[in-house]
Amino acid sequence: MRCDRQWEGIGCPVEAIDTPALLVDFDALQRNIERMAAFGTTHGVGIRPHAKTHKTPIIAHMQIAAGAIGQCVQKVGEAEVLVAGGVADVLIANEVVGFEKLARLAALARTARITVAVDNELAAEALAEAAGAAQVTVGVVVDVDVGQGRCGVAPGQAALEFGHRVARLAGLELRGLQGYHGAIQHVHGFDARADRARKANAQLLDTAILFEADGLAIDIVTGAGTGTYAIEGVQAGMTEIQPGSYIFMDRQYREIGASGSDIYDDFEPALAVLATVMSTPTATRVVTDAGLKALSSDVGAPQLLDRPGWTYAFGGDEHGLLVGETARAPIGLGEKVRLLPSHCDTTINLYDRYHVVRGGALAAVWPIAARGRTR
Amino acid sequence: MRCDRQWEGIGCPVEAIDTPALLVDFDALQRNIERMAAFGTTHGVGIRPHAKTHKTPIIAHMQIAAGAIGQCVQKVGEAEVLVAGGVADVLIANEVVGFEKLARLAALARTARITVAVDNELAAEALAEAAGAAQVTVGVVVDVDVGQGRCGVAPGQAALEFGHRVARLAGLELRGLQGYHGAIQHVHGFDARADRARKANAQLLDTAILFEADGLAIDIVTGAGTGTYAIEGVQAGMTEIQPGSYIFMDRQYREIGASGSDIYDDFEPALAVLATVMSTPTATRVVTDAGLKALSSDVGAPQLLDRPGWTYAFGGDEHGLLVGETARAPIGLGEKVRLLPSHCDTTINLYDRYHVVRGGALAAVWPIAARGRTR
Repeated sequence: MRCDRQWEGIGCPVEAIDTPALLVDFDALQRNIERMAAFGTTHGVGIRPHAKTHKTPIIAHMQIAAGAIGQCVQKVGEAEVLVAGGVADVLIANEVVGFEKLARLAALARTARITVAVDNELAAEALAEAAGAAQVTVGVVVDVDVGQGRCGVAPGQAALEFGHRVARLAGLELRGLQGYHGAIQHVHGFDARADRARKANAQLLDTAILFEADGLAIDIVTGAGTGTYAIEGVQAGMTEIQPGSYIFMDRQYREIGASGSDIYDDFEPALAVLATVMSTPTATRVVTDAGLKALSSDVGAPQLLDRPGWTYAFGGDEHGLLVGETARAPIGLGEKVRLLPSHCDTTINLYDRYHVVRGGALAAVWPIAARGRTR
Repeated sequence: MRCDRQWEGIGCPVEAIDTPALLVDFDALQRNIERMAAFGTTHGVGIRPHAKTHKTPIIAHMQIAAGAIGQCVQKVGEAEVLVAGGVADVLIANEVVGFEKLARLAALARTARITVAVDNELAAEALAEAAGAAQVTVGVVVDVDVGQGRCGVAPGQAALEFGHRVARLAGLELRGLQGYHGAIQHVHGFDARADRARKANAQLLDTAILFEADGLAIDIVTGAGTGTYAIEGVQAGMTEIQPGSYIFMDRQYREIGASGSDIYDDFEPALAVLATVMSTPTATRVVTDAGLKALSSDVGAPQLLDRPGWTYAFGGDEHGLLVGETARAPIGLGEKVRLLPSHCDTTINLYDRYHVVRGGALAAVWPIAARGRTR
């Protein structure tokens, strides 16, 4: 479809957007943000959305306007983009090592409240040194391994002893504890997920009690994600939760199921990749222009929307195959189709811009300012 | 390691490069380019390297300086970057649909020799219209499906009839035929790969003979890739080949094997991701800062280099686990490790810059100018 409006096509119908394009349903995004904010208000837990998903200050500010207490990120580079974009409170929910990154992190603490996860004494000392050199205070949370087997210190006494050592370091302020279990986010079935999440997170909460009992004052007990927000977010002692994907959802999260439903529908799908059919070799096999460089594959293929009887399969870096069960309801050359990404975070990281849609028309083009910021 | 040179760290040792970083071994890259160029000279076949791999004019010019006849790409956006960077002959080895892309494609033909694959009459007519509007001639190759089951017209009579129709369109110049079979590139074992590639490509070559016999003059018969260059590149009738990954290699290509070897060593690995250990929970499990956003996963995990007894596993978007068989040869906090990507093209597409290394030091930082250019 041709639409010749001048500025980035604002006002043009969705079908006129050139492809591959990453579409955001603005109204669904806003509703998801409000739904999570309401959960936080109802249960008295802070919402600290994970910006590793959206990677843009614009969405961070939508979340904060709805009541979020700040943002969390995985990388210093993401924190830089948020702070430059006016976000005042950022938790780097991940370990940071290396003098260049620590100097950048400390510099951010001059203009924003910065907190970072620590799990190693040498790393904490290097962080304290960087904070001292920059004449700032950097907040830290002790990262506790609640069973994921990735980063983090062991819960209980080991965490407590580490906490005491960190609390003594000048330039650092021990603010609390973090525990996150990525794999549990995607356990299928609400009851199975709840059971595992509660047990894992109990180790974090018990450790927090140890800290308090041993004179280590903490303000933050942080963790949880989109799959467990309603489970861990209601456990006594949690002060904040870190959901990221809830704003967009994806095929992987849709499939984990909710209480009484096979579909996890606490939040609405608000993200899609728009693709164009650029070859129609047969009536039941056509080819789109969106492949591995337009849709991440780490948890499998995306889900084709709006086209029952057809499925998407990766066809290479720049090709996606659409295969139909029958030749009925054919898909023609030049037609545009929408795909629900299998994993929103890694798909978003492939794009420079969001194409934001309202009422069937392009409403805005937002830069994905922290795309590629892995450092 | 600290190194305070001013400009992007040029001259600093590799170990001082902040991570994750995409390292290019300049000398190995140059040797790979020369090896492929020598193959072309020896066998009288044109080398048209695929820029979908490297996405940068700098490497295109290294290839052309060594004798390459031009470049091929998958997307108009990649062609734009190459033409803006001074590349004079670009084949878009893929179908292009949509008036915006066709207008951009036609505009490129004002300053460069542009050729594009076609497999559909409506698409060819739209291309001819765009060429007419821009008052240019665009070259086309008929894309023949030699068995991949993706794009392309059927070989033989169907292709011939389509070729005649395309040849009659004003604004287009029928230049030849293309046939490519992606899956065969990665068939393990040289003999099995050669057998399948020769049979598949024979359909392209037979179709070329049909074209000539029926009065359709063609200059280009193009195809093949890094896995089949030495097989299809020596078949009579092939005028050029399109290898991309040979300049860097990756884990997937290394494993397909060569004649008399389990390792495909026609070319040297010249690409690695540098990562830093940022958490050391146990003596046999440490965590790096390079995960799914730093290393593509579409063909599995990367290969850890230089560290026998340790293997890499993805640990999330921003984490990679290194797991050791024993606690001997431990990997310490802050240590840097190198990873051979499983798939070079999709990994490169995650980065904005190459860090080019010679003699153990950073020699240059090259922009990956066409990263993300999926349109």
